[in-house]
Amino acid sequence: MEIAELGEFGLIKHLTKEIKLENKSSLKGVGDDCAIIQYQEDMQTLVTTDMLMEGVHFDLQYVPMKHLGYKSAIVNFSDIYAMNGTPRQIVVSIALGKRFTVEDMQDFYDGLQLACQEHHVDIVGGDTTSSMTGLAISITCLGEARKEDIVLRSGAQENDLVCVSGNLGAAYMGLQLLEREKTVFNQQYREAQQRGDKRGLEELQAAQPDFSGREYLLERQLKPEARRDIIERLREAGIRPTAMMDISDGLSSELMHICEQSNVGCRIFEERIPLDYQTAVAAEEFNMNVTTCAMNGGEDYELLFTVPLTMHDAVSQIEDVKVIGHITKPSLGKLLVCRDGSEFELKAQGWNPLAPPTSEGE
Amino acid sequence: MEIAELGEFGLIKHLTKEIKLENKSSLKGVGDDCAIIQYQEDMQTLVTTDMLMEGVHFDLQYVPMKHLGYKSAIVNFSDIYAMNGTPRQIVVSIALGKRFTVEDMQDFYDGLQLACQEHHVDIVGGDTTSSMTGLAISITCLGEARKEDIVLRSGAQENDLVCVSGNLGAAYMGLQLLEREKTVFNQQYREAQQRGDKRGLEELQAAQPDFSGREYLLERQLKPEARRDIIERLREAGIRPTAMMDISDGLSSELMHICEQSNVGCRIFEERIPLDYQTAVAAEEFNMNVTTCAMNGGEDYELLFTVPLTMHDAVSQIEDVKVIGHITKPSLGKLLVCRDGSEFELKAQGWNPLAPPTSEGE
Repeated sequence: MEIAELGEFGLIKHLTKEIKLENKSSLKGVGDDCAIIQYQEDMQTLVTTDMLMEGVHFDLQYVPMKHLGYKSAIVNFSDIYAMNGTPRQIVVSIALGKRFTVEDMQDFYDGLQLACQEHHVDIVGGDTTSSMTGLAISITCLGEARKEDIVLRSGAQENDLVCVSGNLGAAYMGLQLLEREKTVFNQQYREAQQRGDKRGLEELQAAQPDFSGREYLLERQLKPEARRDIIERLREAGIRPTAMMDISDGLSSELMHICEQSNVGCRIFEERIPLDYQTAVAAEEFNMNVTTCAMNGGEDYELLFTVPLTMHDAVSQIEDVKVIGHITKPSLGKLLVCRDGSEFELKAQGWNPLAPPTSEGE
Repeated sequence: MEIAELGEFGLIKHLTKEIKLENKSSLKGVGDDCAIIQYQEDMQTLVTTDMLMEGVHFDLQYVPMKHLGYKSAIVNFSDIYAMNGTPRQIVVSIALGKRFTVEDMQDFYDGLQLACQEHHVDIVGGDTTSSMTGLAISITCLGEARKEDIVLRSGAQENDLVCVSGNLGAAYMGLQLLEREKTVFNQQYREAQQRGDKRGLEELQAAQPDFSGREYLLERQLKPEARRDIIERLREAGIRPTAMMDISDGLSSELMHICEQSNVGCRIFEERIPLDYQTAVAAEEFNMNVTTCAMNGGEDYELLFTVPLTMHDAVSQIEDVKVIGHITKPSLGKLLVCRDGSEFELKAQGWNPLAPPTSEGE
């Protein structure tokens, strides 16, 4: 169905008709000039926002709308967890071109709502409008936390342990796989077009690329998760990180943020950086250095945090958390210690969306 | 200066370096995964969001970046005032193409900050990224209000008076003027190009269109204001509207929202609709019906509200507020009573951003 048939208000009604507000703090959702929210009086409000642009942050040739909806919400929840808070509400703005149908938007909302259900977050408002070109998505997430629970980037202290959750570089390798398949597909498609090979074109469109054995990498790229589980385990273990942030631009870039805002240095050990087996295999295949992928790949949405040295035993017992180094005096620099003992100053080669022409994700 | 020279973090630092937080409730602004906000315990939080897309909501051929920044903030403040609240914080996301310079972004931020200073609002966060094509802007505004002060769209009662602030249709006529000048300019430019008339091209680019006597209309389009003054006057007069919203899509469309959400009808009198003299002159010149412009033009950002009949004298004394009709039983419909006594059912011909191909603003 064409979106013009419903119009802005019709589309919003259609997409939001099944939204139920789950949180007590969501007093009023979609349908007025503003949403109304009220947290308990001892709570502080956390606010984060992310904008995703077609052709920059996602490629609809291989990203399904439902996954896009899911990921758009998750990347915001991840920022709230990274402050040691709980996400509660989002407002969702979308600008879409004429090629999108009501069904596309329904898929996007299905993904969005799935993420919201899993994290008990309410969709309380937004803006739906048109775009002259691609799809633009902007989500703002509100969350809450007790004042004494909030963890900033600026609290890391000398001798603290540097920890990460999960493993790194997988989302980046997933992107490489998808980009390679896209290039191959487009090449074959052009050739079939030039030959006038109708049947070849049909076969190409029906074919699914073979990603067997690499499903995990694709999932990390297309359907990332926000690590609420880690926040909960830390709480259960009585550990309050001294500094924390989520890894969206790459470990290297995020370590530099924590060090600069905490006015400290760090020593990170290459051999301690958690990698999945599939990430290593794919890096080998692409002739890439797997440590570079893990340090600079980005989009992992894992948590990077520091804890006091006295917490070493407690934090080591938490499943899926690894100590990768420690915090030092600022004068010692921000160093990566390689397997052969050589040391390198960290560089933020993380993804820079405003850099001169690059291919996506680099 | 090219934005790539600074990169994302450099640009954000450059743009936000002079931002000071003015409100006690803004505990932490730009620089971490989230902003932190805390209102007094008896306050509820209002949240609204607006997305503005180049080529749909604004045309950079005649909208200066500074005005765009100002307007982007104001349209959000207007939504908070329309709930009878006070705007306090915004987060600002911008996606920009390669043709924009650091100076362009500085101009945008100058306008944004001017609006924020006038309304005592803090910029506490955002996202700055790139776009493959045009400029995309998404602002989310947070505000606060006492529970008992909040006014919804749904509270209008039979016999209430329908009131509007300011005058209507001026922003729409301003848009018509700008669009006409643009068409003329583009035509003359193409002709000069075809003639190979270098001097003519230079003269055209240096020339300023003559808008003398129409400055008010341009200002209403390019630099709209959010009516905090009206909210304050109503408060001073002890008047709490029963329903309220701001007029962004046009009086007709907004009246229908209030009537539908309040389950009432209305009778609005054409002769009572406030018009500026310049609006009437321009409508005449464009051979348009001025009432249609006022009913459906949009972008006025005036307040539409209802008050109990007993408030007639009090509300009539407020400067720049006009009673334009009254609320009726739902069965009586939503009617516009014309000067000749004929009656028309209201139609929402307000701007539909998702309608099939249209020229901007129609």
